[in-house]
Amino acid sequence: MPKKIRLGILGGGGDSLIGVLHRVASFINDNYEIVGAVFNPDYDQSVEFAKEIDIPTNRIYKDFDTLVEEELKLPEDERIQVCSVQTPNFLHFPMAKKLLDNGFHVICEKPMTMDYAEAKILEEAHQKSGKIFALTHTYTGYPMVRQMKEMIKTGELGKIHKVDAQYYQGWINSIIHDKEKRSTVWRLDPTKAGISSCMGDIGVHAFNMVEFTTGLQIKSVLCDFNYLYEDNKMDVDGTVLVRMDDHVKGVIRSSQVATGEENGLTIAIYGEKGALKWEQERPNFLYKMSDTEPLQVYKPGHAYNSEFSLNASKLPPGHPEGIFDSMANIYLGAARAIRGEAYKEGEFPTMKDGVRGMNFIESTVASHKGGNVWVALD
Amino acid sequence: MPKKIRLGILGGGGDSLIGVLHRVASFINDNYEIVGAVFNPDYDQSVEFAKEIDIPTNRIYKDFDTLVEEELKLPEDERIQVCSVQTPNFLHFPMAKKLLDNGFHVICEKPMTMDYAEAKILEEAHQKSGKIFALTHTYTGYPMVRQMKEMIKTGELGKIHKVDAQYYQGWINSIIHDKEKRSTVWRLDPTKAGISSCMGDIGVHAFNMVEFTTGLQIKSVLCDFNYLYEDNKMDVDGTVLVRMDDHVKGVIRSSQVATGEENGLTIAIYGEKGALKWEQERPNFLYKMSDTEPLQVYKPGHAYNSEFSLNASKLPPGHPEGIFDSMANIYLGAARAIRGEAYKEGEFPTMKDGVRGMNFIESTVASHKGGNVWVALD
Amino acid sequence: MPKKIRLGILGGGGDSLIGVLHRVASFINDNYEIVGAVFNPDYDQSVEFAKEIDIPTNRIYKDFDTLVEEELKLPEDERIQVCSVQTPNFLHFPMAKKLLDNGFHVICEKPMTMDYAEAKILEEAHQKSGKIFALTHTYTGYPMVRQMKEMIKTGELGKIHKVDAQYYQGWINSIIHDKEKRSTVWRLDPTKAGISSCMGDIGVHAFNMVEFTTGLQIKSVLCDFNYLYEDNKMDVDGTVLVRMDDHVKGVIRSSQVATGEENGLTIAIYGEKGALKWEQERPNFLYKMSDTEPLQVYKPGHAYNSEFSLNASKLPPGHPEGIFDSMANIYLGAARAIRGEAYKEGEFPTMKDGVRGMNFIESTVASHKGGNVWVALD
Amino acid sequence: MPKKIRLGILGGGGDSLIGVLHRVASFINDNYEIVGAVFNPDYDQSVEFAKEIDIPTNRIYKDFDTLVEEELKLPEDERIQVCSVQTPNFLHFPMAKKLLDNGFHVICEKPMTMDYAEAKILEEAHQKSGKIFALTHTYTGYPMVRQMKEMIKTGELGKIHKVDAQYYQGWINSIIHDKEKRSTVWRLDPTKAGISSCMGDIGVHAFNMVEFTTGLQIKSVLCDFNYLYEDNKMDVDGTVLVRMDDHVKGVIRSSQVATGEENGLTIAIYGEKGALKWEQERPNFLYKMSDTEPLQVYKPGHAYNSEFSLNASKLPPGHPEGIFDSMANIYLGAARAIRGEAYKEGEFPTMKDGVRGMNFIESTVASHKGGNVWVALD
Repeated sequence: MPKKIRLGILGGGGDSLIGVLHRVASFINDNYEIVGAVFNPDYDQSVEFAKEIDIPTNRIYKDFDTLVEEELKLPEDERIQVCSVQTPNFLHFPMAKKLLDNGFHVICEKPMTMDYAEAKILEEAHQKSGKIFALTHTYTGYPMVRQMKEMIKTGELGKIHKVDAQYYQGWINSIIHDKEKRSTVWRLDPTKAGISSCMGDIGVHAFNMVEFTTGLQIKSVLCDFNYLYEDNKMDVDGTVLVRMDDHVKGVIRSSQVATGEENGLTIAIYGEKGALKWEQERPNFLYKMSDTEPLQVYKPGHAYNSEFSLNASKLPPGHPEGIFDSMANIYLGAARAIRGEAYKEGEFPTMKDGVRGMNFIESTVASHKGGNVWVALD
Repeated sequence: MPKKIRLGILGGGGDSLIGVLHRVASFINDNYEIVGAVFNPDYDQSVEFAKEIDIPTNRIYKDFDTLVEEELKLPEDERIQVCSVQTPNFLHFPMAKKLLDNGFHVICEKPMTMDYAEAKILEEAHQKSGKIFALTHTYTGYPMVRQMKEMIKTGELGKIHKVDAQYYQGWINSIIHDKEKRSTVWRLDPTKAGISSCMGDIGVHAFNMVEFTTGLQIKSVLCDFNYLYEDNKMDVDGTVLVRMDDHVKGVIRSSQVATGEENGLTIAIYGEKGALKWEQERPNFLYKMSDTEPLQVYKPGHAYNSEFSLNASKLPPGHPEGIFDSMANIYLGAARAIRGEAYKEGEFPTMKDGVRGMNFIESTVASHKGGNVWVALD
Repeated sequence: MPKKIRLGILGGGGDSLIGVLHRVASFINDNYEIVGAVFNPDYDQSVEFAKEIDIPTNRIYKDFDTLVEEELKLPEDERIQVCSVQTPNFLHFPMAKKLLDNGFHVICEKPMTMDYAEAKILEEAHQKSGKIFALTHTYTGYPMVRQMKEMIKTGELGKIHKVDAQYYQGWINSIIHDKEKRSTVWRLDPTKAGISSCMGDIGVHAFNMVEFTTGLQIKSVLCDFNYLYEDNKMDVDGTVLVRMDDHVKGVIRSSQVATGEENGLTIAIYGEKGALKWEQERPNFLYKMSDTEPLQVYKPGHAYNSEFSLNASKLPPGHPEGIFDSMANIYLGAARAIRGEAYKEGEFPTMKDGVRGMNFIESTVASHKGGNVWVALD
Repeated sequence: MPKKIRLGILGGGGDSLIGVLHRVASFINDNYEIVGAVFNPDYDQSVEFAKEIDIPTNRIYKDFDTLVEEELKLPEDERIQVCSVQTPNFLHFPMAKKLLDNGFHVICEKPMTMDYAEAKILEEAHQKSGKIFALTHTYTGYPMVRQMKEMIKTGELGKIHKVDAQYYQGWINSIIHDKEKRSTVWRLDPTKAGISSCMGDIGVHAFNMVEFTTGLQIKSVLCDFNYLYEDNKMDVDGTVLVRMDDHVKGVIRSSQVATGEENGLTIAIYGEKGALKWEQERPNFLYKMSDTEPLQVYKPGHAYNSEFSLNASKLPPGHPEGIFDSMANIYLGAARAIRGEAYKEGEFPTMKDGVRGMNFIESTVASHKGGNVWVALD
């Protein structure tokens, strides 16, 4: 029996950056083989792209519905086992739902859905399906993020009392300050991009990292957005006060107008006995702080790390692995789950992360629109 | 005529850390000579300390009132010109007021007063006096903070649209988690320490840095404190959403329970064309960011810096100056003002900074107590 | 015609770290398909490994000679086009030579050969063959190393007058201080590991980086090794004074006993007008220095980078790529050359780099053994 | 009896940078009072400068000889106790010698003398005198350098086997590449500046740091200088292979043409069990490395530091002290010695450091001129 999982790809063709990331990630640990795809709404372009990356063209389909239909005709041991959904955001929900409904496993880009209501529907579909659903919150695959989660779980920080997460980018500056551009780009059109730009696209990653690393749930949020211009209808910056428990508080800061920031996701978790800090752009360094001891800098691949972290490194210390390797770890976790092997909570983000994320995004919007009031998450 | 200004010291004796900082700062640029003091409530200890630091003991007074009274009897060209107030917080206001009322210049530690009402009274006294009042927001004296202010003023960032300032410490962990300690320490007793612990002690520095570097005013705040324990009545952590103008927003983050943080004051200012970042613990590096150019790291003493920044360095590039040198720059600015020389806005923090600071602190408390509502500053 | 190049693998099976690095690198840009291999001296283990990574087992051969023999029987358009040599060091030369002699392209791990004499023989074989030979000096594939090379080439530093390269590791501490271990490990046995441990394994990378980035040649060396113990016969540390021209000098520092260092390869090039610095463990930052301007930090993926550098990044700024991606860039360059496409000097290290490297290693040994005298490279 | 030591200043007037550094350092710990001086060869300028820094002018002398003569006429309890020598290099030796011969303590800038022969003579004069002689190797006063020394002394690194020190600057680029300038500047005129430029001015600091922190002696050196131009007669760059014992080796790298470097003094000491690294431009961070544990970052003022280090900090952790504070620690150590108080080896650099330094400089010159041969230090 071949070991490799039969993978279908939806989207990700042409110059798609997310496409490269997913494809390479699927290859890295020898777990997947691409057997079918709809890379592009245009069939010819889909086939062209298949040739370009040199995979067989016989199961390149003209559209998603055809893919499902035709694959279901194939014997189960030839059929696509899992589809990776990399299409524009509004297609994530209908595709994921139909896939689950028809017995396919799903690896899905974020945002999982366009809103919380869809997320709840998808959650139900998922439960019924019994299939694996992996959401690609890429950053949870980094070895030092996993180490962070483990150190917190084993109590190295004591009781957590404060969190501070940031996701700062500056790229939307090139659009937002130009009236023409900001009124035409789909990213800032609520009918196309959903209810939130900044919080929906990147703030939610920071939210996910807080819950992923601490194992705690954010219970309520108070949010203030900045739209920068009167005629702009989408948040391009937002700060969220968060409460996790009576005396456990924090802040999530998110911006697409933090000029000069590239992909500035950082997270700091403060506990009674210690603290941990991590930055996405220097992913191989984890900072352990205490009030009385020297700062400690953890790096991947060392025996002092947890098994969960060590399993996320391929090479010895000093050989920097990056974001492709992080995504590959998520694909690896999903592969283990798809094969029915034992896997551990955290090896890949799940439906629960997606539901929580949509709940968070909607709550921040509600808070802002309600006049910066506290809004409870479910 | 001697160049050195006749300086009186109030407080700062014995092992006082703030005392060392002020005393050394006053010496660094050859501008001050200590001629009189009340170092300590206990006269003998005051004299003892004078001997220890080897200054004449003839004008060591038994208390503050005596100092004022006796000094006024001296001819004007022998009399203390300026008093440096380094006493416990609740004495700042009465001492500063009496000094101004009696024609002395004042250099005053922060918090300037115990509340905003006192601040307004002091402001009036100051205006009437015509004397110099310098508030020691120490961090504004760093060469790279001054460079930051100048670069923003000359428009290198374009229109500012976002600010993010942080002042994180962890030291109160050693007190707050112990019920006995937290209920007895004066720092957490509102009747002794004032209305705010974290925001009043350090958050206000972050606030001051934002207004100092940007030249903009924060118009309203929404604040959430964390007291950590039900029986604790003082904020030990707080996050403040700030608004400077319709579409100019930001956040001030402040904590005394950010475990492992020492003196983590950082400031980031984002504008349409560029951004600047600075960290107090690496004070000789200023980061200039843009969306399209390589990150630039400015350092003190280089000809590419502004004159305002260059005047705050004594040695060529690569010779790290520190917090004593920063405070010395404030003393230098005050000296120039006291001598009636021309000086520039920003050479030392003034009454206005003190009034703004108290306004900010009270507003954050009002916001938190009001249920995290927006409170406008005057 | 399929785009993917038919790749054969020699070595790299089981838990081989180098095997993972090469295999993943070959996949990353969709250029190679593994069609044949001798992963292991033991045929059954080779087959087992093929199954584990799920590739066809029909062209897994019992040994290298059989691979060559059998592949030559296949029609040219099915035959392995290029073999990747990942075997123990002493096999690099005979395998590479036989492959070239029989018309296969070669991708070869370093050291290319066991000594300089073999390198010269291989060079000749290569010239006769007309085939592509790529040596995997992995670090030359990083986008910021390529940017460094381009900036020097276009004269941004002016005339180079000083180089300083370092490759520090600490791992041999766990062996060298134990008499039993150091006398038995193959790494420190000259009959098995060749004439040099430290300089041969890692110093040569630093040497290669100097010549790669500057485009200059090191003309002579003076070297002092440290063996640490009388009974140890292999260098575990060495410093090399280098001269590139009459007034162009520098130093290459290399160690396996630099305790706590992991993979500390750094390079600094100083020229009349500017300097560049790079560190392997933070590969996505390139530091441009000048005497009069702020330090500039270049990062991958920005439009300000050269095309050569941009071609080595797959994702936008802020998405850290790592050593797998660096190696993948070398495989990409080799693929272009193998397909007969235009490629540029520097896209992959070549035979010339291998010959230079062996020349360097032997010269450092000769210098040390000759009593730390200057030895000229050819 | 006044606590403050009566200090005389030789040189350091006008815009002298070294003058500011020494003067401020002498004030910082309340230990010294300037009572006499020859700030300048021109008497009027000396007096002018005394007025500018507002010290009494009655003991400003017309020249050094007069200072000695007149001070000797004063009663011992009024007389200058210690002179700080900040004059041009060639005057250090004659002044220091005469001062010691006449019963004054001496604080002396480096280089201590113009050559090794003078150093030996001064050493003898010092021994006869019974007076304190402090050499201002400024960098040994930093708290983290002192911590480094203590950690090595207490065996935290185990047996040292490798050292690597660097002192890189780039400032001479503005002179050396201009034929006119390089032939006229006194710095590059051996008759005025002594036998070495780069090694004598800064390399010797790196040498001193190695011996200071490790407590070991460098036994022999092999050096290669770079003069950059045929017509330049002084080293502006040099690398020194050093041997401390049979299997304890290292390198000292020094340059004035390391473009863009400011004051890049760094030191790394590698031992059997651990390593320590420190950089002058980030003086408040000390890096402790091991092969098996996370990197540890030590900072000043923490209880985990040695008493020797803690005594060199005035403020709590997170308040950056700088080079003035480092120099002040040396003045503090000298003050304790001058007063006859107990002090510990390392509180200030001594005659021995000066003699060793001159021995080192001459040995590097001899090595280079001898054709890069090994030269033993005494």
